[in-house]
Amino acid sequence: MNEQQIRQLLQQVANGDLQPDNALMQLRDLPFENLGFAHVDHHRALRTGFPEVIFGQGKTRQQVLDIAERIIGHGSQMLATRLEETTANALVERFARAEYDALARTVLIPAADTPLSLPTGKIAVVSAGTSDLPVAREAVVTARAMGAKVEEIYDVGVAGLHRLLAYRDQLHTARVIVVVAGMEGALASVIGGLVNIPVVAVPTSVGYGASFEGVAALLAMLNSCASGVVVVNIDNGFGAGYAAALINRDTADGA
Amino acid sequence: MNEQQIRQLLQQVANGDLQPDNALMQLRDLPFENLGFAHVDHHRALRTGFPEVIFGQGKTRQQVLDIAERIIGHGSQMLATRLEETTANALVERFARAEYDALARTVLIPAADTPLSLPTGKIAVVSAGTSDLPVAREAVVTARAMGAKVEEIYDVGVAGLHRLLAYRDQLHTARVIVVVAGMEGALASVIGGLVNIPVVAVPTSVGYGASFEGVAALLAMLNSCASGVVVVNIDNGFGAGYAAALINRDTADGA
Amino acid sequence: MNEQQIRQLLQQVANGDLQPDNALMQLRDLPFENLGFAHVDHHRALRTGFPEVIFGQGKTRQQVLDIAERIIGHGSQMLATRLEETTANALVERFARAEYDALARTVLIPAADTPLSLPTGKIAVVSAGTSDLPVAREAVVTARAMGAKVEEIYDVGVAGLHRLLAYRDQLHTARVIVVVAGMEGALASVIGGLVNIPVVAVPTSVGYGASFEGVAALLAMLNSCASGVVVVNIDNGFGAGYAAALINRDTADGA
Amino acid sequence: MNEQQIRQLLQQVANGDLQPDNALMQLRDLPFENLGFAHVDHHRALRTGFPEVIFGQGKTRQQVLDIAERIIGHGSQMLATRLEETTANALVERFARAEYDALARTVLIPAADTPLSLPTGKIAVVSAGTSDLPVAREAVVTARAMGAKVEEIYDVGVAGLHRLLAYRDQLHTARVIVVVAGMEGALASVIGGLVNIPVVAVPTSVGYGASFEGVAALLAMLNSCASGVVVVNIDNGFGAGYAAALINRDTADGA
Amino acid sequence: MNEQQIRQLLQQVANGDLQPDNALMQLRDLPFENLGFAHVDHHRALRTGFPEVIFGQGKTRQQVLDIAERIIGHGSQMLATRLEETTANALVERFARAEYDALARTVLIPAADTPLSLPTGKIAVVSAGTSDLPVAREAVVTARAMGAKVEEIYDVGVAGLHRLLAYRDQLHTARVIVVVAGMEGALASVIGGLVNIPVVAVPTSVGYGASFEGVAALLAMLNSCASGVVVVNIDNGFGAGYAAALINRDTADGA
Amino acid sequence: MNEQQIRQLLQQVANGDLQPDNALMQLRDLPFENLGFAHVDHHRALRTGFPEVIFGQGKTRQQVLDIAERIIGHGSQMLATRLEETTANALVERFARAEYDALARTVLIPAADTPLSLPTGKIAVVSAGTSDLPVAREAVVTARAMGAKVEEIYDVGVAGLHRLLAYRDQLHTARVIVVVAGMEGALASVIGGLVNIPVVAVPTSVGYGASFEGVAALLAMLNSCASGVVVVNIDNGFGAGYAAALINRDTADGA
Amino acid sequence: MNEQQIRQLLQQVANGDLQPDNALMQLRDLPFENLGFAHVDHHRALRTGFPEVIFGQGKTRQQVLDIAERIIGHGSQMLATRLEETTANALVERFARAEYDALARTVLIPAADTPLSLPTGKIAVVSAGTSDLPVAREAVVTARAMGAKVEEIYDVGVAGLHRLLAYRDQLHTARVIVVVAGMEGALASVIGGLVNIPVVAVPTSVGYGASFEGVAALLAMLNSCASGVVVVNIDNGFGAGYAAALINRDTADGA
Amino acid sequence: MNEQQIRQLLQQVANGDLQPDNALMQLRDLPFENLGFAHVDHHRALRTGFPEVIFGQGKTRQQVLDIAERIIGHGSQMLATRLEETTANALVERFARAEYDALARTVLIPAADTPLSLPTGKIAVVSAGTSDLPVAREAVVTARAMGAKVEEIYDVGVAGLHRLLAYRDQLHTARVIVVVAGMEGALASVIGGLVNIPVVAVPTSVGYGASFEGVAALLAMLNSCASGVVVVNIDNGFGAGYAAALINRDTADGA
Repeated sequence: MNEQQIRQLLQQVANGDLQPDNALMQLRDLPFENLGFAHVDHHRALRTGFPEVIFGQGKTRQQVLDIAERIIGHGSQMLATRLEETTANALVERFARAEYDALARTVLIPAADTPLSLPTGKIAVVSAGTSDLPVAREAVVTARAMGAKVEEIYDVGVAGLHRLLAYRDQLHTARVIVVVAGMEGALASVIGGLVNIPVVAVPTSVGYGASFEGVAALLAMLNSCASGVVVVNIDNGFGAGYAAALINRDTADGA
Repeated sequence: MNEQQIRQLLQQVANGDLQPDNALMQLRDLPFENLGFAHVDHHRALRTGFPEVIFGQGKTRQQVLDIAERIIGHGSQMLATRLEETTANALVERFARAEYDALARTVLIPAADTPLSLPTGKIAVVSAGTSDLPVAREAVVTARAMGAKVEEIYDVGVAGLHRLLAYRDQLHTARVIVVVAGMEGALASVIGGLVNIPVVAVPTSVGYGASFEGVAALLAMLNSCASGVVVVNIDNGFGAGYAAALINRDTADGA
Repeated sequence: MNEQQIRQLLQQVANGDLQPDNALMQLRDLPFENLGFAHVDHHRALRTGFPEVIFGQGKTRQQVLDIAERIIGHGSQMLATRLEETTANALVERFARAEYDALARTVLIPAADTPLSLPTGKIAVVSAGTSDLPVAREAVVTARAMGAKVEEIYDVGVAGLHRLLAYRDQLHTARVIVVVAGMEGALASVIGGLVNIPVVAVPTSVGYGASFEGVAALLAMLNSCASGVVVVNIDNGFGAGYAAALINRDTADGA
Repeated sequence: MNEQQIRQLLQQVANGDLQPDNALMQLRDLPFENLGFAHVDHHRALRTGFPEVIFGQGKTRQQVLDIAERIIGHGSQMLATRLEETTANALVERFARAEYDALARTVLIPAADTPLSLPTGKIAVVSAGTSDLPVAREAVVTARAMGAKVEEIYDVGVAGLHRLLAYRDQLHTARVIVVVAGMEGALASVIGGLVNIPVVAVPTSVGYGASFEGVAALLAMLNSCASGVVVVNIDNGFGAGYAAALINRDTADGA
Repeated sequence: MNEQQIRQLLQQVANGDLQPDNALMQLRDLPFENLGFAHVDHHRALRTGFPEVIFGQGKTRQQVLDIAERIIGHGSQMLATRLEETTANALVERFARAEYDALARTVLIPAADTPLSLPTGKIAVVSAGTSDLPVAREAVVTARAMGAKVEEIYDVGVAGLHRLLAYRDQLHTARVIVVVAGMEGALASVIGGLVNIPVVAVPTSVGYGASFEGVAALLAMLNSCASGVVVVNIDNGFGAGYAAALINRDTADGA
Repeated sequence: MNEQQIRQLLQQVANGDLQPDNALMQLRDLPFENLGFAHVDHHRALRTGFPEVIFGQGKTRQQVLDIAERIIGHGSQMLATRLEETTANALVERFARAEYDALARTVLIPAADTPLSLPTGKIAVVSAGTSDLPVAREAVVTARAMGAKVEEIYDVGVAGLHRLLAYRDQLHTARVIVVVAGMEGALASVIGGLVNIPVVAVPTSVGYGASFEGVAALLAMLNSCASGVVVVNIDNGFGAGYAAALINRDTADGA
Repeated sequence: MNEQQIRQLLQQVANGDLQPDNALMQLRDLPFENLGFAHVDHHRALRTGFPEVIFGQGKTRQQVLDIAERIIGHGSQMLATRLEETTANALVERFARAEYDALARTVLIPAADTPLSLPTGKIAVVSAGTSDLPVAREAVVTARAMGAKVEEIYDVGVAGLHRLLAYRDQLHTARVIVVVAGMEGALASVIGGLVNIPVVAVPTSVGYGASFEGVAALLAMLNSCASGVVVVNIDNGFGAGYAAALINRDTADGA
Repeated sequence: MNEQQIRQLLQQVANGDLQPDNALMQLRDLPFENLGFAHVDHHRALRTGFPEVIFGQGKTRQQVLDIAERIIGHGSQMLATRLEETTANALVERFARAEYDALARTVLIPAADTPLSLPTGKIAVVSAGTSDLPVAREAVVTARAMGAKVEEIYDVGVAGLHRLLAYRDQLHTARVIVVVAGMEGALASVIGGLVNIPVVAVPTSVGYGASFEGVAALLAMLNSCASGVVVVNIDNGFGAGYAAALINRDTADGA
C-alpha cells in the first residue's frame, strides 16, 4: 500500500465516505492470505506481473498443491522450484497449463490471459561444466517466467579457453550474463574481464574435496578481480535468474 | 579486438594493403602498456567511457603516481581507491582536476572534455549504520564517476524500522539499490522484500566478536529470503558502485 | 541439598538423633537413580514442578521407555523430544495420558494430579517460514509443558514485511518472544527492533548452500543490531521454549 | 506509532480537525532526528524509560559528543559504551552528571529528574576469570542503567569448583544470571545445571590458540547441556546486561 | 632393531660369523610382513606385550580376517576396532577366544598363554551422557586389552553436578581419568579442576547444530582452564584408552 | 591454433588462396565438438598424445557412453575416472580394448595403433595406509595411461617408520614421487625430507573426527617443512598422476 | 574438603565439640582468598606440593605482584607464565629467590624449605624447529617446577629425519615425551611411531599461510596415526609441561 | 648414509679395519652440526649442489648470522629468505659475495668456486597483479639459486585476458610454470588450460574481505578444473621456486 493509496483512503475518511474504524481495518487488510502453515502474498505478483514463487524444498506435496491452488485461483502465474519429481507430476496432473522442466526441477504455470510485455534485452546463461546444468536451467526457467529472452551457452569452462572465446559475440550483446560454475569458479572472472555488462555469478556445489560443497567457487566469485561481478548463494539458480530478469527489465519498481 | 576488426584486417591482407607479418603483429599489438611492474589497460576505458581504476591498496605512492601519469596521458578519466592520505594528497597536488573524498578514500580525476551522457535512472545507496559510511561513500563516488545519479540514505538499520520506512518512496523510484550493512546484515533482506528492484548488497566488516570481520553479514546477504539480492565482497564499496552503474546503464556492452 | 537441609541434618547429629556415619551417607544420598546407562535426576522435577525431559535423539526405543517408566513412577510429568515416530507411538501405547505432537516430534505426559499454577504472562512464538514449523512447535510444546500460555504466529518472514507488521499488537503484549528463523535469520533483528521485550532467537537449519546448516542464521542472530536478543543453538526449539518459560515465570529459583 | 494513535489521527480527519495531507505528514513524521551521519531515535527511550545508547566503537569523539548533545537535550538518560578514554573524558567534562567506568569503558548520564521505579528482582553477574572483568562490568553498568539491582561474583571458574559452590545461595535468589567466561566457557553449563533461572551467557575473547578469539566459549555455551542457557555475542557485555534487565522487568512492552 | 642388536650383528661380522652382504640383508630385513595391501608390524606387539590393533573402518571383512590370521599366527593378542557387526561375527566364528563387545564395536582376541603382569594403578573412564557410551566403551576395552584395571562411571554430565560429586573418591584414587563428553564438553574441565591426575579428554560427536559433529567439545577441551587435561581426536575412544594405558604402565619404553 | 598456423592462414589470404570470410571461419573453427550438454575438446589429446579424460562423477551412464563414443571415433585413447560400477561395465561391454580397474574406479581405452614413446624416468606412488589405496590406484592408472613407468609402495605410514625406510632406494631412483595419505598426512613431509625429488602430495579423506574429510592432511601437506612438496586436492589421485606424468615427460609443451 | 574431613567434623558435632552453625560455616569456609579481582586458591598448592600458577597474559603488573605476594605469603612456591618483561623484572626485584627465564617468559619462585621428593622418571621435551623454542622452554620450566627431571632435544624436525633418529635412545628411556612442533606438526606422529611412551603434543603457531596460526599442526596431532599421542592447546607449553609432570609422578591424587 | 656406504663400512669391519664399536659410532655420526638452537644439515647441500636455506622468519639477526657463518664455512652456497631489512644488510656487510633482493626479501651467497651445471629447460614465473610481485620474486631468486633459467611475466591477471594471451609462446616453451595470484586465483586455471606443462600455483594473501588472507585463492587453485596444476602454501614463493627447480632438473635424486 503506497502513499497514493493512503492519501485516497484518508480523503475518503475526510469526506465521510469511510468510517475511521473501517479505514483502520483497510490499513490492516493487507493482501496476503493465511493458510495456517503459510501466508500467501498475492500483493507482489499482482503488482509486478511476475509469477508467485513456491520454494518446494522442505515442503510436502500436499502443501505445494494447496499453495498452488490459491495462487492459480487468484489468476497469477506461478513458478515452483526445487520440486521432488512426484510433486512436480502432481502439479502437472492438477493444472492443465503446467510446464515441467525435469533438469531444472521446476514447474511453471503461466497466467491464462495476461501476456507479459517482454523487455528488449536478453540474458545469457553460461555454465562451466555439464554438471552445472541443473542450476543453469533453474536460472533459465526463472528468467523466462519473468518475461526475459535467454540464450544458453554450456560447458565452456576455462580449462579450454578457446571454447569460451568462440561465444564472445553472444556475450557482448547480452544485457546481463548469468555465469554458473563450480570447482574453482574462475569462469565468472574471465567473462567479467571480457565484457562490460553486469555478471551475476552462481557458484555450484559441483566439485569434491576442498571445494567444500561450493565454498571454493563462492569465495572465488566474491573475490573476482573483474569489476561488475555480483554473486548469489551456492546453487541458487533461481536467485540468479530472478536478479538477472530484474536487471533486464530496465525500469524502476512500479509499485 | 572484435570480429569486425579482424574481418577488416583480413580484408586488408587480401587486398595486399597489409603484409601477413604486419597483420600478425597487429593481432598481437594489444592496447596495453607495460610499466615493468604493471600492465595499464587503456582498452577498456577507451571503449566504455568508464574511468580507469587504480586499486591503491598495497601499491606505493610512486607506483600510483606513475600509473596515474600514463592514464591521464591517454586522456582517460581516472578513479583511484583505497588510498593512503599521503598518496591522495600527492595526486591532488599533481593533477589539477583531482577530487579527493577523504571518507571514501578515493581520488577521481575526470576527463578534460568528454562529458558522459548520463543514464536516466538513479541509484540509491543505503547504509545501516554510521560506521558503514566509508564503504557506502566508496560506492557513491564510483557510481558517480561512471555517470550515475546517486541518492544517499544513511543510518537506517533494521533496529529502528520506522526510520527506513520513511524513505520508502525514494527506494521505489531507484533503478538499483546498493545496501551497505555490517553486523547481521538484515537490511538487505528487508529492503529486498520492500521493492522489486535489483539490490546489490555490500557486507561490511563493522561489528565485533562473531561478526568475524563481516562474514556474518556476508552469509546473511547470500542467504537472503528476498529475491533480487546479489552480493559483493566484504567492504567492497567500489565493486557495488561499479555493478550498480553497469545495471543502471540499461544497454548491452558496446565493445 | 540446600543449606537449610544441611543445617537440619547437622542439628539431628547434634541432638544425637542421627549417627555421623548415617549423616555422611545422607550427604551422599543424592536424589538421582542409576539405571546403568543413565542417571535419572528426580530432584529438579520435584523441586520446580517442571517436567522431566528425555532427549530422545540417539537413544533406543527401549531406553526411552525405561527412563519414562521411572519418571512416571515418581509422579512427575514428563516431556520427551526428538522422538522417532515408532518410539513416540510406543510411549502413547504405554502411557494413557501421553500427548504426541507429530510435527514437534514430542510426547508430553502430564502429571496426574498437580496442576501447575500458570504464570500470568504469555509467550509469542514466531516463525519466518513454513519449513521452520517443526522447531517452532517444539518450542511451543515445551513452553506449554512448563505452564506457559503461548501464541503462535507463523510464516511472517522479512521478505514480506507487511505480514509481520500486521501482528504488531500481539508482539507488544507478550512477556517474551521466541523467534524461529533459518536462511539469513533477519526476523530476530526486525522483531527485536520493534519491541522492548526479551527475544529468544532460534536459528534453524532451513536454507541451502552458504546457510551452512543454520550457521548463517546463527551468526546473524548473535550479531543482531537490536538490543535484547539472545540466542540458542541451531534447531533448538526445546531450549528456546524452556528459556522462555523460565523468563515468563517471573520468580527466582525456589530451590 | 501504534494502532491507538492511528485511530485517533483518523478520528481527527473524520472530525475535520485534521487535513488529509497533514495527517499523511504526521504518519510520516516519525520520532527520529537526522544528524546527517546518524539518525537519533528518541522514540524508544521516551517510551521505555531506558537510556539511549551510543555504541562508541568506530565513532569519532566529535560524533559521540554530537549525538550525546541531542540525547541529553531531549531529557533522556544516556549510556555510551566501548569508549576510548579520551572520548569518555570529553563526555565527563561536558556533562556534569556523567559517570565514567574505566574498566567497563562506559559513560552513563542519568536523567535529571525521572527516577526509575526499580524492579524487585536482582541480577547476578558472574565471571570465570579476572580477565573477563571488563565484559562483566559492561553488563553490570548496563543493567544498572536500566534500573536493575545487580550482584557481582568474579573469578569463580570451574577449575576451582568450591569457589563457585560457596556462592550457591546468591545464585538461587537471583531473577536472572549473567555468566561471563572465556576459554572453554564451561561456567555457563555448570551454573545452568545448579539453578532453574534464565542464564544469559557471554563468551569472552579471553584465551589463546584454539580459543579462536572466543569461538570456543561461544560454541560451548550454545551447546550447553543445561536447559535455560541463552547466549549473546562474544564480549557483548552490553547485550547481556540489556537482555537481563528486560527479563528482570517482569512486564510486557508498554509501547 | 635397536642398538644392542646392531652391535651384536656387527660383532658377528667382525668375528667372520656373518658375511657383510648377509648383514646388510638383515639390516634391511625388518620385522614386518607384506600382505600386498597391508604391512603387518609384528615388531611392536612382540616388544611391548600390547595387542596388535586392526582399525576396522574402511577395511573389508576379508581384509580384516586376513590380517587377523597373520597376527594370531604370530601368537600375539589382537584388538580390532570400529567393526561392522558382520565382520565382528566373522572374527568370533573364526577365532575361539574372540570376545565381541557390540557397544564398543570391538573384538579382542587375547594371547593363548602369556598373561600380562598388570600395572597396580587403575583408570577411571567417565562419560557425560548415555549417548557417549560407545566411545567410552571403546576406551574401556582398549585399556583392558593393554592390561589395565578400569572403573566406569557413566552419565554424570555437569548439568547435574551432584551426580558427579558423588563419585569424587573414585576419581581421586585413579592413576589417570578418561573423560568422554559431547555437546559443550565441560565435564573435562570440571573433573580436571577436582583432581591432580592426568585427564585424557575425548570429545564426542554427540550433539546437534553448532556442536559441529564434536568440534564444540573438542575446542572446549583444548581450552580447558584446568591444568592436566590433554585431548585426543573426536570419538577416539581407542586413542584415549591406549594413551591412558601407557600412562598407567608407570615405566619407560622397554624397547 | 598457434602463431605458425595463423601465419600460414594469413599467407593463404594474401595469396588469394583463401577468402577473408573463410579465414575468419577457420579462426573460429576450433577443434571441439558440441554435444549439447558437453563440448568435447579433441585438440588437447591430438596434440599431446595424452588420453582424453572423462570425469565420471555426476554424469549419467548414457552421457559417459556418448562422450566416449566421440572420443574413440577420433582415434584418441580415453581415460574415464570416478565411474559407477555399472557405467564401467557398460564401457567394457561397448569397447573391446577397455581396461577396467575396480579399485581405482577407472576405465582406460588405449588407442588402437599409436604406442606412446615412453619417458625414461619412473614415478613412485606411495600410500600411508590400506584405506588410501583407491586414490593411489587412480594416480597409478592415470600416470600409466600417459605413458609413465610406475612403482607402487603401499601401507608405509609414519607410525612404523622402519617400513618406509626399507624402500629408501626405490624412492631415490624415482623422477617424481606421488605420496597419498590421510589422517595427519605426515608421510609427505617425511618422504620430502628423505629425497631431493619433486613430491606430489595427495591428501585423502581417510580419517575421522577432526580430520574433517581430509582437511587435516591437506593443511599438513601445504605446511610441509620439507622443500619440494606440492599438493593437489583431497582424494585427487587423477590430478596427482597427471601432474606426475607431466613432470616425468622431461620436455616442454609441444603445442 | 574430603570425606574424611567431613566425617571428623560430623563427629565433633556429635560429640558436642562443635555447634551445628559453626560446622555449617566450616563447610562453607573453603581455602581460597578473595582479592576482589581474583580468588587465590591455596588449597591445591598446599595439597600437592605443586606450585601455584599465575597466568600472566592479560593481567597488569600490579595484579601479578599482588597475587604473588599472597602466594609467597602462604609459603607456597609459585610459577608465573606469559609475562611481559617488565612484569618479570618486577617479580625478580621483589622476590629474592625468583628465577626468570626470558625465552620461556616465566618466573619461578621456589618454596623456601620444602624440597620436593623427585619422581624417578624423566621427561624428554623435543622441538621441531628453532622457532618452537619459547613454547618448548615453557614446558621445560613448568615440568621442572613440578619436580621433574627434563631432557631437551631441539631442532630435530622431520625434514631431516637422521637428526631425530640420532636421539632414539634418549627418547626410549623417557617416562613421557613432550613434542613441540608448528607447521605440519608431523614430528608428533613420527616420535609416537618410534616409542611406546605417552606423547604430549603441543602445536605451535609457527608457520604461515595455511598453517592458520597453528591450526594445521593442531589437526595433524589430533589425527596422528601413531597411538599414544595426546594433544594440548596451540602454544600451550605450560599445559604440556604440567600434564607431563602429572604423568611422570606415577601416583594417584593424594588429595 | 646410503646402502653403498653401509656396505663399505661393513666390509671394513669384516676386514678387521674397523672395530664394531667404531662402526656403530659412525652409523650414528650423521652429518649435521648442533649449534644449540639449531641443527645445520650440511648433508643435503653437499650432495645436491643446491644452496643451504635459512628461513629467516622468526629468527633473530644473530641467529641468522651464526647459521650463515657455519654454512659458508663449509663452502656451500646459501639462500636466506623472509629477511628483515636489517638482517639482510648485516649479511651483505659480513659476506662479500652476498646478493640482496629487497623485493623478494632474500640474500643469496653463491659458492666461491663450484659453478652449477645448468639444466637446459627454463621456468616461467607469472603473476596476476603488481601486489603479487614479492612472492613471485622469491620464487625467481630461489629457482635461480638452484641453477634454473627463469623468465618473468607480471601483471597479466584474467581481468584483462588479452594481456596474458600475448605471452602464449613464452608459456608453451617453458619446462614448468610458476603462477602467482591472489584474490580469486583464477590465473592458475587459465594458464593450466592453455598449456600441457606442470603448473606450480602459489596463492598469495593479496585481496581483502572474503579472500581470507589467501584462502580463496588457495581453494581455487586446489579445485582447478585444469589438469597439471599443483599447489603450495599461501605466499610460499620459496617453495614454488624450489619445486619448479626440482622439476626442471630432469634427473632423479643422485643421493
